[in-house]
Amino acid sequence: MIPDSLLQETTRFLHAQIPLTQAMEAEIVQMDSWGLRLKAPLAPNHNHLGSAFGGSLSAAATLACYSLVWLLMEDRSVHIVVKQSEIQYLHPVEGDILAFCQRPQDDEVADFRLCLATRGKARLTLNCTIEHGGRICVTFRGEFVALRK
Amino acid sequence: MIPDSLLQETTRFLHAQIPLTQAMEAEIVQMDSWGLRLKAPLAPNHNHLGSAFGGSLSAAATLACYSLVWLLMEDRSVHIVVKQSEIQYLHPVEGDILAFCQRPQDDEVADFRLCLATRGKARLTLNCTIEHGGRICVTFRGEFVALRK
Repeated sequence: MIPDSLLQETTRFLHAQIPLTQAMEAEIVQMDSWGLRLKAPLAPNHNHLGSAFGGSLSAAATLACYSLVWLLMEDRSVHIVVKQSEIQYLHPVEGDILAFCQRPQDDEVADFRLCLATRGKARLTLNCTIEHGGRICVTFRGEFVALRK
Repeated sequence: MIPDSLLQETTRFLHAQIPLTQAMEAEIVQMDSWGLRLKAPLAPNHNHLGSAFGGSLSAAATLACYSLVWLLMEDRSVHIVVKQSEIQYLHPVEGDILAFCQRPQDDEVADFRLCLATRGKARLTLNCTIEHGGRICVTFRGEFVALRK
């Protein structure tokens, strides 16, 4: 379990460095051995139908995955970039956006860290879902690359 | 060629109905027989590296495609939703986001309109690119559904 103080510090970093995350009011609310949870309220993220805007949903999923890699790294001298992603919008999200990025298996995390340490570059594929009303409304899969500066 | 007044009206509609588009300062700048161009300046859309945030890029591409369907429809009693999309981030976008959504072939547009008129529902797959410095930095492909209310 990552302490709340570090989650709040990471949220402040995102807001300071990536202005859209502040406009979205995105906030990292939890990270444990299962994964990372990011919340973005509906009010600044709704569309013309009153449900969550597709662009906000994809940005929230990207951000949840990005934040998980950032917190896994424990190394601030690493750049993380998204290389590609795919997203399915299964049902409208008619409330706050709650994105959950699944933590990869321990062996994948170990490989990722080893690869970064030895080659200065490593890739990780991450899965994220957004649930609402007890069902999965959005599935997201993205490939992220970490590069030693 | 769609008149500037209609593009400006559509931009105002987006800003009024989808607050994130206003935070992004997204603006439809052109639509003709080739496709639709949408601009979002770098300042509100940058990331921690000074280039465009992945979430802003995917939102801009989604929005360019969405706006093209909206302007193709010429029917305000239709709901448009994005069903799925995939995006490749080939190079960082180190300036304003300029998204270009290609207009589908005339026969695809005719099929789409016919399907919507007869069945009340129609699907369209759209391609969008984001260029910077004379090269394609982002490719996006999305499936959109129009539904008669």
